[in-house]
Amino acid sequence: MRPRTLVNGVASRALDVADRGLQFGDGLFETMALIGGRVRRLEMHLARLRRGCERLGIEYPGDDLLKAEIAQLGTEIDGAVIKLIVTRGASARGYAAPVGAPTRVLELHPWPEHPADATHAGVAIRFCDLRLSDQPALAGLKHLNRLEQVLARREWQDQAIAEGLLCDARGHVVCGTMSNVFAIREGKLVTPSLDRSGVRGTLRETVLRHASAMGVGATEADISRNDVLRADELFLTNAIIGLWPVRQLEDRQWSPGPLTRRLLAAIDAAPSD
Amino acid sequence: MRPRTLVNGVASRALDVADRGLQFGDGLFETMALIGGRVRRLEMHLARLRRGCERLGIEYPGDDLLKAEIAQLGTEIDGAVIKLIVTRGASARGYAAPVGAPTRVLELHPWPEHPADATHAGVAIRFCDLRLSDQPALAGLKHLNRLEQVLARREWQDQAIAEGLLCDARGHVVCGTMSNVFAIREGKLVTPSLDRSGVRGTLRETVLRHASAMGVGATEADISRNDVLRADELFLTNAIIGLWPVRQLEDRQWSPGPLTRRLLAAIDAAPSD
Repeated sequence: MRPRTLVNGVASRALDVADRGLQFGDGLFETMALIGGRVRRLEMHLARLRRGCERLGIEYPGDDLLKAEIAQLGTEIDGAVIKLIVTRGASARGYAAPVGAPTRVLELHPWPEHPADATHAGVAIRFCDLRLSDQPALAGLKHLNRLEQVLARREWQDQAIAEGLLCDARGHVVCGTMSNVFAIREGKLVTPSLDRSGVRGTLRETVLRHASAMGVGATEADISRNDVLRADELFLTNAIIGLWPVRQLEDRQWSPGPLTRRLLAAIDAAPSD
Repeated sequence: MRPRTLVNGVASRALDVADRGLQFGDGLFETMALIGGRVRRLEMHLARLRRGCERLGIEYPGDDLLKAEIAQLGTEIDGAVIKLIVTRGASARGYAAPVGAPTRVLELHPWPEHPADATHAGVAIRFCDLRLSDQPALAGLKHLNRLEQVLARREWQDQAIAEGLLCDARGHVVCGTMSNVFAIREGKLVTPSLDRSGVRGTLRETVLRHASAMGVGATEADISRNDVLRADELFLTNAIIGLWPVRQLEDRQWSPGPLTRRLLAAIDAAPSD
Protein backbone atom coordinates (compact mmCIF):
# COMPACT_ATOMS: atom_id res chain seq x y z
CA MET A 1 0.00 0.00 0.00
CA ARG A 2 1.16 3.50 -0.81
CA PRO A 3 1.89 5.80 2.13
CA ARG A 4 -0.62 8.58 2.73
CA THR A 5 1.81 10.80 4.61
CA LEU A 6 5.51 11.45 4.12
CA VAL A 7 7.78 13.38 6.44
CA ASN A 8 11.04 14.22 4.69
CA GLY A 9 10.36 11.50 2.16
CA VAL A 10 9.71 8.74 4.70
CA ALA A 11 6.30 7.18 5.33
CA SER A 12 5.40 8.66 8.71
CA ARG A 13 2.84 10.81 10.48
CA ALA A 14 5.35 12.01 13.10
CA LEU A 15 6.80 15.51 13.23
CA ASP A 16 9.60 16.35 15.68
CA VAL A 17 8.02 18.67 18.27
CA ALA A 18 11.11 20.90 17.92
CA ASP A 19 10.01 21.71 14.38
CA ARG A 20 9.49 25.43 13.91
CA GLY A 21 6.34 24.70 11.95
CA LEU A 22 4.75 23.80 15.29
CA GLN A 23 6.73 26.15 17.49
CA PHE A 24 6.16 29.33 15.46
CA GLY A 25 4.11 28.50 12.36
CA ASP A 26 7.45 29.10 10.63
CA GLY A 27 6.66 27.67 7.21
CA LEU A 28 4.45 27.58 4.14
CA PHE A 29 1.99 25.22 2.52
CA GLU A 30 0.35 24.31 -0.77
CA THR A 31 -2.97 22.56 -1.28
CA MET A 32 -3.16 20.83 -4.66
CA ALA A 33 -5.84 18.98 -6.63
CA LEU A 34 -4.93 15.48 -7.81
CA ILE A 35 -7.29 14.75 -10.71
CA GLY A 36 -7.02 12.01 -13.29
CA GLY A 37 -3.58 11.05 -12.04
CA ARG A 38 -2.22 14.59 -12.41
CA VAL A 39 -1.50 17.32 -9.91
CA ARG A 40 -3.20 20.31 -11.44
CA ARG A 41 -1.11 23.45 -11.80
CA LEU A 42 1.84 21.74 -10.10
CA GLU A 43 4.39 24.14 -11.60
CA MET A 44 2.42 27.15 -10.32
CA HIS A 45 2.19 25.65 -6.84
CA LEU A 46 5.92 24.93 -6.70
CA ALA A 47 6.79 28.36 -8.09
CA ARG A 48 4.65 30.05 -5.44
CA LEU A 49 6.21 27.89 -2.72
CA ARG A 50 9.69 28.80 -3.95
CA ARG A 51 8.85 32.51 -3.93
CA GLY A 52 7.41 32.16 -0.42
CA CYS A 53 10.56 30.42 0.78
CA GLU A 54 12.64 33.25 -0.68
CA ARG A 55 10.58 35.87 1.13
CA LEU A 56 10.82 34.07 4.49
CA GLY A 57 14.46 33.06 4.05
CA ILE A 58 13.66 29.33 4.09
CA GLU A 59 15.76 27.04 1.92
CA TYR A 60 13.55 25.78 -0.95
CA PRO A 61 13.78 21.96 -1.12
CA GLY A 62 13.88 21.96 -4.93
CA ASP A 63 11.40 21.01 -7.65
CA ASP A 64 12.95 17.61 -8.35
CA LEU A 65 12.86 16.42 -4.75
CA LEU A 66 9.29 17.63 -4.20
CA LYS A 67 8.06 16.07 -7.45
CA ALA A 68 9.71 12.75 -6.57
CA GLU A 69 8.03 12.77 -3.16
CA ILE A 70 4.64 13.64 -4.66
CA ALA A 71 5.09 10.67 -6.99
CA GLN A 72 5.70 8.44 -3.94
CA LEU A 73 2.18 9.26 -2.74
CA GLY A 74 0.80 7.78 -5.96
CA THR A 75 -0.41 10.19 -8.59
CA GLU A 76 -2.45 7.48 -10.33
CA ILE A 77 -5.26 8.46 -7.95
CA ASP A 78 -8.22 10.37 -9.36
CA GLY A 79 -9.80 12.86 -7.02
CA ALA A 80 -7.69 13.60 -3.96
CA VAL A 81 -6.02 16.54 -2.28
CA ILE A 82 -2.28 16.76 -1.76
CA LYS A 83 -1.17 19.12 0.98
CA LEU A 84 2.51 20.01 1.07
CA ILE A 85 4.02 21.80 4.05
CA VAL A 86 7.57 23.15 4.09
CA THR A 87 8.89 24.51 7.38
CA ARG A 88 12.19 26.14 8.27
CA GLY A 89 13.04 22.90 10.11
CA ALA A 90 13.76 21.90 13.69
CA SER A 91 15.79 24.10 16.00
CA ALA A 92 16.59 24.65 19.65
CA ARG A 93 14.26 26.98 21.57
CA GLY A 94 14.22 30.64 20.58
CA TYR A 95 13.64 32.62 17.42
CA ALA A 96 17.36 33.03 16.67
CA ALA A 97 18.40 29.40 17.23
CA PRO A 98 20.35 27.83 14.34
CA VAL A 99 18.19 25.69 12.08
CA GLY A 100 19.08 22.57 10.10
CA ALA A 101 17.42 21.55 6.87
CA PRO A 102 13.83 22.51 6.06
CA THR A 103 11.12 19.97 6.82
CA ARG A 104 8.83 18.57 4.13
CA VAL A 105 5.42 17.12 5.02
CA LEU A 106 3.27 15.64 2.26
CA GLU A 107 -0.27 14.45 2.95
CA LEU A 108 -2.82 12.74 0.74
CA HIS A 109 -6.37 13.68 1.72
CA PRO A 110 -9.75 12.53 0.39
CA TRP A 111 -11.56 14.89 -1.93
CA PRO A 112 -13.68 17.14 0.30
CA GLU A 113 -17.48 17.09 0.40
CA HIS A 114 -18.74 20.34 -1.01
CA PRO A 115 -22.23 21.79 -1.37
CA ALA A 116 -24.07 19.86 -4.08
CA ASP A 117 -23.76 21.45 -7.51
CA ALA A 118 -21.73 24.36 -6.14
CA THR A 119 -19.97 24.86 -9.46
CA HIS A 120 -23.14 25.22 -11.52
CA ALA A 121 -25.80 26.51 -9.13
CA GLY A 122 -23.45 28.63 -7.03
CA VAL A 123 -22.99 28.91 -3.28
CA ALA A 124 -24.38 31.01 -0.44
CA ILE A 125 -21.75 32.97 1.51
CA ARG A 126 -21.54 35.49 4.34
CA PHE A 127 -19.40 38.34 5.60
CA CYS A 128 -17.23 37.50 8.63
CA ASP A 129 -16.92 39.88 11.58
CA LEU A 130 -13.21 39.27 12.11
CA ARG A 131 -11.01 41.81 10.34
CA LEU A 132 -7.77 40.64 8.74
CA SER A 133 -4.68 42.40 10.02
CA ASP A 134 -2.38 44.33 7.67
CA GLN A 135 1.06 42.76 7.38
CA PRO A 136 2.85 43.59 4.13
CA ALA A 137 5.78 41.34 5.14
CA LEU A 138 3.50 38.30 4.95
CA ALA A 139 0.79 39.43 2.51
CA GLY A 140 0.20 37.08 -0.40
CA LEU A 141 2.04 34.18 1.22
CA LYS A 142 0.38 30.86 2.00
CA HIS A 143 2.13 30.65 5.37
CA LEU A 144 1.33 28.57 8.43
CA ASN A 145 0.09 31.43 10.66
CA ARG A 146 -3.60 30.87 10.03
CA LEU A 147 -5.26 31.69 13.35
CA GLU A 148 -7.24 34.51 11.74
CA GLN A 149 -8.77 32.05 9.30
CA VAL A 150 -9.45 29.56 12.11
CA LEU A 151 -11.29 32.21 14.14
CA ALA A 152 -13.21 33.52 11.12
CA ARG A 153 -14.36 30.02 10.16
CA ARG A 154 -15.62 29.51 13.72
CA GLU A 155 -18.11 32.36 13.25
CA TRP A 156 -20.69 30.13 11.56
CA GLN A 157 -21.85 26.52 11.71
CA ASP A 158 -24.69 26.68 9.14
CA GLN A 159 -23.67 24.13 6.52
CA ALA A 160 -25.70 26.00 3.92
CA ILE A 161 -23.06 28.76 4.06
CA ALA A 162 -20.10 27.64 1.99
CA GLU A 163 -17.65 30.45 2.68
CA GLY A 164 -17.12 33.67 4.63
CA LEU A 165 -15.64 36.86 3.18
CA LEU A 166 -13.05 38.70 5.24
CA CYS A 167 -12.48 42.45 5.30
CA ASP A 168 -9.47 44.35 6.54
CA ALA A 169 -9.54 47.11 9.15
CA ARG A 170 -10.41 49.70 6.50
CA GLY A 171 -13.47 47.65 5.54
CA HIS A 172 -12.09 46.48 2.20
CA VAL A 173 -12.92 42.93 1.18
CA VAL A 174 -9.73 40.85 0.94
CA CYS A 175 -10.65 37.19 0.41
CA GLY A 176 -12.62 34.28 1.82
CA THR A 177 -11.34 32.11 4.65
CA MET A 178 -10.08 29.61 2.04
CA SER A 179 -10.61 31.36 -1.30
CA ASN A 180 -10.00 34.42 -3.41
CA VAL A 181 -12.90 36.54 -4.59
CA PHE A 182 -13.72 38.14 -7.95
CA ALA A 183 -16.45 40.64 -8.75
CA ILE A 184 -17.67 41.44 -12.25
CA ARG A 185 -19.04 44.87 -13.07
CA GLU A 186 -19.94 46.02 -16.56
CA GLY A 187 -18.10 43.12 -18.14
CA LYS A 188 -14.86 43.66 -16.24
CA LEU A 189 -13.22 41.60 -13.53
CA VAL A 190 -11.94 43.07 -10.29
CA THR A 191 -10.26 41.22 -7.45
CA PRO A 192 -8.79 42.64 -4.23
CA SER A 193 -5.16 43.69 -4.34
CA LEU A 194 -3.32 41.59 -1.77
CA ASP A 195 -0.48 43.87 -0.71
CA ARG A 196 -1.48 44.02 2.95
CA SER A 197 -3.09 40.64 3.67
CA GLY A 198 -4.56 37.60 1.97
CA VAL A 199 -3.12 34.73 -0.06
CA ARG A 200 -2.30 34.94 -3.77
CA GLY A 201 -4.10 31.81 -4.88
CA THR A 202 -2.88 29.80 -7.84
CA LEU A 203 -6.37 29.77 -9.34
CA ARG A 204 -6.59 33.52 -8.86
CA GLU A 205 -3.56 33.87 -11.13
CA THR A 206 -5.08 31.38 -13.57
CA VAL A 207 -8.33 33.35 -13.78
CA LEU A 208 -6.45 36.60 -14.34
CA ARG A 209 -4.47 34.93 -17.12
CA HIS A 210 -7.58 33.54 -18.80
CA ALA A 211 -9.30 36.91 -18.55
CA SER A 212 -6.33 38.51 -20.26
CA ALA A 213 -6.34 35.86 -23.01
CA MET A 214 -10.08 36.43 -23.51
CA GLY A 215 -9.61 40.18 -23.80
CA VAL A 216 -11.57 40.78 -20.60
CA GLY A 217 -10.40 43.71 -18.52
CA ALA A 218 -9.19 42.66 -15.07
CA THR A 219 -7.82 44.82 -12.27
CA GLU A 220 -6.55 44.37 -8.73
CA ALA A 221 -8.07 47.10 -6.60
CA ASP A 222 -9.64 48.04 -3.28
CA ILE A 223 -13.17 46.64 -3.10
CA SER A 224 -15.75 47.60 -0.49
CA ARG A 225 -18.56 45.42 0.82
CA ASN A 226 -20.95 47.51 -1.26
CA ASP A 227 -18.87 46.92 -4.39
CA VAL A 228 -19.23 43.21 -3.75
CA LEU A 229 -22.98 43.43 -3.11
CA ARG A 230 -23.50 45.57 -6.23
CA ALA A 231 -21.48 43.28 -8.52
CA ASP A 232 -23.19 41.91 -11.63
CA GLU A 233 -21.50 38.56 -10.97
CA LEU A 234 -19.45 37.31 -8.06
CA PHE A 235 -17.32 34.18 -7.71
CA LEU A 236 -14.74 32.49 -5.50
CA THR A 237 -11.67 30.49 -6.45
CA ASN A 238 -9.25 28.08 -4.91
CA ALA A 239 -7.16 25.18 -6.15
CA ILE A 240 -9.57 22.54 -4.86
CA ILE A 241 -13.00 24.07 -5.37
CA GLY A 242 -11.99 25.55 -8.70
CA LEU A 243 -14.45 28.37 -9.41
CA TRP A 244 -17.67 28.74 -7.42
CA PRO A 245 -20.25 31.28 -8.53
CA VAL A 246 -21.85 33.06 -5.59
CA ARG A 247 -25.64 32.86 -5.63
CA GLN A 248 -26.40 34.55 -2.30
CA LEU A 249 -24.77 37.08 0.03
CA GLU A 250 -26.88 38.88 2.61
CA ASP A 251 -30.06 39.96 0.77
CA ARG A 252 -28.46 39.91 -2.67
CA GLN A 253 -29.02 36.98 -5.01
CA TRP A 254 -27.32 36.10 -8.27
CA SER A 255 -27.55 33.47 -10.98
CA PRO A 256 -24.23 32.33 -12.43
CA GLY A 257 -23.58 34.97 -15.08
CA PRO A 258 -22.18 34.83 -18.61
CA LEU A 259 -18.61 35.88 -17.85
CA THR A 260 -18.43 33.53 -14.86
CA ARG A 261 -19.56 30.68 -17.13
CA ARG A 262 -17.01 31.60 -19.81
CA LEU A 263 -14.20 31.59 -17.25
CA LEU A 264 -15.38 28.26 -15.82
CA ALA A 265 -15.35 26.76 -19.31
CA ALA A 266 -11.91 28.18 -20.06
CA ILE A 267 -10.45 26.70 -16.88
CA ASP A 268 -12.06 23.30 -17.48
CA ALA A 269 -10.77 23.26 -21.07
CA ALA A 270 -7.17 23.91 -20.04
CA PRO A 271 -6.08 20.70 -18.30
CA SER A 272 -2.44 21.69 -18.56
CA ASP A 273 -3.02 24.70 -16.31
CA MET B 1 16.24 8.80 33.10
CA ARG B 2 13.46 11.35 33.12
CA PRO B 3 11.89 12.18 29.77
CA ARG B 4 12.74 15.58 28.33
CA THR B 5 9.66 15.80 26.13
CA LEU B 6 6.09 14.63 26.69
CA VAL B 7 3.32 14.58 24.11
CA ASN B 8 -0.04 14.11 25.81
CA GLY B 9 1.73 12.79 28.87
CA VAL B 10 3.81 10.17 27.06
CA ALA B 11 7.58 10.39 26.62
CA SER B 12 7.85 11.24 22.93
CA ARG B 13 9.12 13.84 20.51
CA ALA B 14 6.53 12.97 17.85
CA LEU B 15 3.56 15.15 16.96
CA ASP B 16 0.90 13.88 14.57
CA VAL B 17 1.29 15.95 11.38
CA ALA B 18 -2.50 16.39 11.38
CA ASP B 19 -2.19 18.47 14.53
CA ARG B 20 -3.59 21.95 14.02
CA GLY B 21 -0.61 23.37 15.89
CA LEU B 22 1.44 22.57 12.78
CA GLN B 23 -1.31 23.02 10.20
CA PHE B 24 -2.50 26.46 11.33
CA GLY B 25 -0.53 27.55 14.40
CA ASP B 26 -3.84 26.84 16.15
CA GLY B 27 -2.67 26.87 19.76
CA LEU B 28 -0.91 28.64 22.60
CA PHE B 29 2.29 28.28 24.59
CA GLU B 30 3.93 29.13 27.90
CA THR B 31 7.65 29.43 28.60
CA MET B 32 8.44 28.89 32.29
CA ALA B 33 11.55 29.16 34.46
CA LEU B 34 12.40 26.08 36.53
CA ILE B 35 14.60 27.33 39.36
CA GLY B 36 15.54 25.55 42.55
CA GLY B 37 13.10 22.75 41.82
CA ARG B 38 10.16 25.13 41.38
CA VAL B 39 8.37 26.44 38.33
CA ARG B 40 8.27 30.15 38.95
CA ARG B 41 4.89 31.85 38.65
CA LEU B 42 3.28 28.55 37.63
CA GLU B 43 -0.21 29.68 38.64
CA MET B 44 0.11 32.84 36.54
CA HIS B 45 1.28 30.83 33.54
CA LEU B 46 -1.59 28.37 33.83
CA ALA B 47 -4.13 31.16 34.37
CA ARG B 48 -2.93 32.96 31.25
CA LEU B 49 -3.03 29.73 29.26
CA ARG B 50 -6.60 29.09 30.46
CA ARG B 51 -7.69 32.60 29.46
CA GLY B 52 -6.03 32.14 26.07
CA CYS B 53 -7.84 28.84 25.54
CA GLU B 54 -11.12 30.54 26.39
CA ARG B 55 -10.50 33.30 23.86
CA LEU B 56 -9.60 30.86 21.07
CA GLY B 57 -12.29 28.34 21.98
CA ILE B 58 -9.77 25.60 22.81
CA GLU B 59 -10.61 23.19 25.62
CA TYR B 60 -8.27 23.92 28.55
CA PRO B 61 -6.61 20.67 29.68
CA GLY B 62 -6.94 21.55 33.37
CA ASP B 63 -4.50 22.64 36.08
CA ASP B 64 -4.22 19.22 37.70
CA LEU B 65 -3.31 17.39 34.52
CA LEU B 66 -0.78 20.01 33.44
CA LYS B 67 0.85 20.11 36.89
CA ALA B 68 1.11 16.32 36.97
CA GLU B 69 2.77 16.31 33.56
CA ILE B 70 5.19 19.06 34.57
CA ALA B 71 6.10 16.92 37.59
CA GLN B 72 6.86 14.02 35.23
CA LEU B 73 9.62 16.14 33.64
CA GLY B 74 11.32 16.36 37.02
CA THR B 75 11.02 19.61 38.89
CA GLU B 76 14.00 18.81 41.11
CA ILE B 77 16.11 20.40 38.38
CA ASP B 78 17.66 23.79 39.07
CA GLY B 79 17.94 26.08 36.09
CA ALA B 80 15.96 24.91 33.11
CA VAL B 81 13.19 26.13 30.85
CA ILE B 82 9.87 24.36 30.53
CA LYS B 83 7.93 25.10 27.38
CA LEU B 84 4.29 24.02 27.32
CA ILE B 85 2.31 24.04 24.08
CA VAL B 86 -1.44 23.42 23.95
CA THR B 87 -3.03 23.10 20.51
CA ARG B 88 -6.64 22.62 19.47
CA GLY B 89 -5.68 19.03 18.55
CA ALA B 90 -5.58 16.97 15.38
CA SER B 91 -8.27 17.23 12.75
CA ALA B 92 -8.98 16.42 9.15
CA ARG B 93 -7.98 19.02 6.56
CA GLY B 94 -9.81 22.33 6.60
CA TYR B 95 -10.49 25.06 9.13
CA ALA B 96 -13.96 23.76 9.99
CA ALA B 97 -13.06 20.08 10.42
CA PRO B 98 -14.17 18.52 13.73
CA VAL B 99 -11.39 18.35 16.31
CA GLY B 100 -10.74 15.81 19.03
CA ALA B 101 -9.02 16.55 22.32
CA PRO B 102 -6.44 19.33 22.62
CA THR B 103 -2.78 18.34 22.32
CA ARG B 104 -0.28 18.97 25.12
CA VAL B 105 3.45 19.20 24.41
CA LEU B 106 5.86 19.70 27.30
CA GLU B 107 9.55 20.27 26.69
CA LEU B 108 12.47 20.63 29.08
CA HIS B 109 15.16 22.92 27.68
CA PRO B 110 18.57 23.93 29.01
CA TRP B 111 18.84 27.38 30.55
CA PRO B 112 19.74 29.75 27.70
CA GLU B 113 23.05 31.54 27.35
CA HIS B 114 22.45 35.22 27.84
CA PRO B 115 24.75 38.23 27.60
CA ALA B 116 27.13 38.21 30.58
CA ASP B 117 25.86 40.23 33.51
CA ALA B 118 22.74 41.31 31.61
CA THR B 119 20.75 41.69 34.81
CA HIS B 120 23.19 44.06 36.50
CA ALA B 121 25.02 45.87 33.70
CA GLY B 122 22.08 45.94 31.30
CA VAL B 123 21.82 45.04 27.62
CA ALA B 124 22.17 46.77 24.27
CA ILE B 125 19.05 46.63 22.09
CA ARG B 126 17.81 47.94 18.73
CA PHE B 127 14.65 48.96 16.93
CA CYS B 128 13.37 46.44 14.37
CA ASP B 129 12.12 47.56 10.94
CA LEU B 130 9.23 45.09 10.82
CA ARG B 131 5.97 46.57 12.05
CA LEU B 132 3.62 44.40 14.09
CA SER B 133 0.14 44.05 12.64
CA ASP B 134 -2.96 45.12 14.58
CA GLN B 135 -5.19 42.18 15.47
CA PRO B 136 -7.37 42.80 18.53
CA ALA B 137 -8.75 39.24 18.30
CA LEU B 138 -5.28 37.87 19.09
CA ALA B 139 -3.65 40.75 20.99
CA GLY B 140 -2.16 39.80 24.35
CA LEU B 141 -2.25 36.06 23.61
CA LYS B 142 0.87 33.90 23.59
CA HIS B 143 -0.31 32.04 20.49
CA LEU B 144 1.62 29.93 18.00
CA ASN B 145 1.42 32.38 15.07
CA ARG B 146 4.87 33.87 15.55
CA LEU B 147 6.13 34.55 12.03
CA GLU B 148 6.35 38.28 12.76
CA GLN B 149 8.74 37.57 15.63
CA VAL B 150 10.73 35.14 13.49
CA LEU B 151 11.16 37.75 10.75
CA ALA B 152 11.98 40.53 13.21
CA ARG B 153 14.64 38.40 14.93
CA ARG B 154 16.23 37.72 11.54
CA GLU B 155 16.96 41.44 11.12
CA TRP B 156 20.19 41.26 13.13
CA GLN B 157 22.99 38.78 13.81
CA ASP B 158 25.19 40.94 16.05
CA GLN B 159 25.39 38.96 19.29
CA ALA B 160 26.06 42.16 21.21
CA ILE B 161 22.43 43.13 20.55
CA ALA B 162 20.27 41.26 23.04
CA GLU B 163 16.80 42.23 21.83
CA GLY B 164 14.89 44.18 19.19
CA LEU B 165 11.94 46.47 19.89
CA LEU B 166 8.92 46.24 17.62
CA CYS B 167 6.58 49.08 16.67
CA ASP B 168 3.11 48.88 15.19
CA ALA B 169 2.00 50.57 11.97
CA ARG B 170 1.31 53.83 13.85
CA GLY B 171 4.92 53.86 15.08
CA HIS B 172 4.07 53.02 18.68
CA VAL B 173 6.46 50.72 20.49
CA VAL B 174 4.70 47.46 21.45
CA CYS B 175 7.26 44.99 22.83
CA GLY B 176 10.49 43.17 22.05
CA THR B 177 10.64 40.03 19.94
CA MET B 178 10.59 37.98 23.15
CA SER B 179 9.98 40.52 25.92
CA ASN B 180 7.80 43.31 27.25
CA VAL B 181 9.19 46.79 27.65
CA PHE B 182 8.90 49.36 30.46
CA ALA B 183 9.98 53.00 30.42
CA ILE B 184 10.43 55.12 33.54
CA ARG B 185 9.87 58.86 33.40
CA GLU B 186 9.86 61.13 36.43
CA GLY B 187 9.58 58.19 38.78
CA LYS B 188 6.63 56.58 37.02
CA LEU B 189 6.39 53.38 35.01
CA VAL B 190 4.77 53.19 31.62
CA THR B 191 4.41 50.11 29.44
CA PRO B 192 2.65 49.78 26.09
CA SER B 193 -1.03 48.91 26.15
CA LEU B 194 -1.42 45.61 24.32
CA ASP B 195 -4.94 45.85 22.91
CA ARG B 196 -3.90 45.57 19.26
CA SER B 197 -0.80 43.38 19.32
CA GLY B 198 1.87 41.97 21.60
CA VAL B 199 1.89 39.36 24.38
CA ARG B 200 0.82 40.04 27.97
CA GLY B 201 3.86 38.58 29.70
CA THR B 202 3.58 37.04 33.16
CA LEU B 203 6.52 39.10 34.38
CA ARG B 204 4.90 42.22 32.95
CA GLU B 205 1.94 41.57 35.26
CA THR B 206 4.33 40.85 38.14
CA VAL B 207 6.17 44.14 37.64
CA LEU B 208 2.89 46.08 37.49
CA ARG B 209 1.81 44.39 40.72
CA HIS B 210 5.09 45.18 42.50
CA ALA B 211 4.95 48.78 41.31
CA SER B 212 1.46 49.07 42.76
CA ALA B 213 2.58 47.54 46.07
CA MET B 214 5.53 49.97 46.19
CA GLY B 215 3.26 52.96 45.55
CA VAL B 216 4.89 53.63 42.18
CA GLY B 217 2.57 54.99 39.50
CA ALA B 218 2.27 52.67 36.52
CA THR B 219 0.21 53.10 33.36
CA GLU B 220 -0.45 51.24 30.14
CA ALA B 221 -0.32 53.74 27.30
CA ASP B 222 0.81 54.47 23.75
CA ILE B 223 4.57 54.98 23.69
CA SER B 224 6.51 56.41 20.77
CA ARG B 225 10.11 55.64 19.86
CA ASN B 226 11.02 59.08 21.19
CA ASP B 227 9.29 58.33 24.49
CA VAL B 228 11.48 55.26 24.78
CA LEU B 229 14.67 57.13 23.86
CA ARG B 230 13.86 59.94 26.32
CA ALA B 231 13.08 57.60 29.22
CA ASP B 232 15.03 58.06 32.46
CA GLU B 233 15.25 54.28 32.78
CA LEU B 234 14.27 51.50 30.40
CA PHE B 235 13.98 47.76 30.99
CA LEU B 236 12.73 44.53 29.43
CA THR B 237 10.97 41.59 31.04
CA ASN B 238 10.15 38.01 30.31
CA ALA B 239 9.68 34.86 32.36
CA ILE B 240 13.16 33.51 31.62
CA ILE B 241 15.35 36.62 31.51
CA GLY B 242 13.53 38.17 34.43
CA LEU B 243 14.23 41.90 34.25
CA TRP B 244 16.96 43.31 32.01
CA PRO B 245 17.90 46.97 32.30
CA VAL B 246 18.62 48.52 28.90
CA ARG B 247 22.02 50.22 28.74
CA GLN B 248 22.04 51.18 25.05
CA LEU B 249 19.55 51.91 22.27
CA GLU B 250 20.67 53.83 19.20
CA ASP B 251 22.78 56.75 20.49
CA ARG B 252 21.19 56.76 23.94
CA GLN B 253 22.95 55.16 26.90
CA TRP B 254 21.70 54.40 30.39
CA SER B 255 23.00 52.98 33.65
CA PRO B 256 20.59 50.77 35.56
CA GLY B 257 18.55 53.33 37.51
CA PRO B 258 17.17 53.39 41.04
CA LEU B 259 13.59 52.32 40.28
CA THR B 260 14.78 49.52 37.98
CA ARG B 261 17.04 48.24 40.82
CA ARG B 262 14.17 48.44 43.34
CA LEU B 263 11.90 46.42 41.04
CA LEU B 264 14.66 43.87 40.41
CA ALA B 265 15.15 43.44 44.16
CA ALA B 266 11.40 43.13 44.76
CA ILE B 267 11.06 40.39 42.14
CA ASP B 268 14.10 38.50 43.47
CA ALA B 269 12.77 38.70 47.01
CA ALA B 270 9.39 37.22 46.09
CA PRO B 271 10.14 33.58 45.28
CA SER B 272 6.48 32.67 45.54
CA ASP B 273 5.62 34.93 42.62
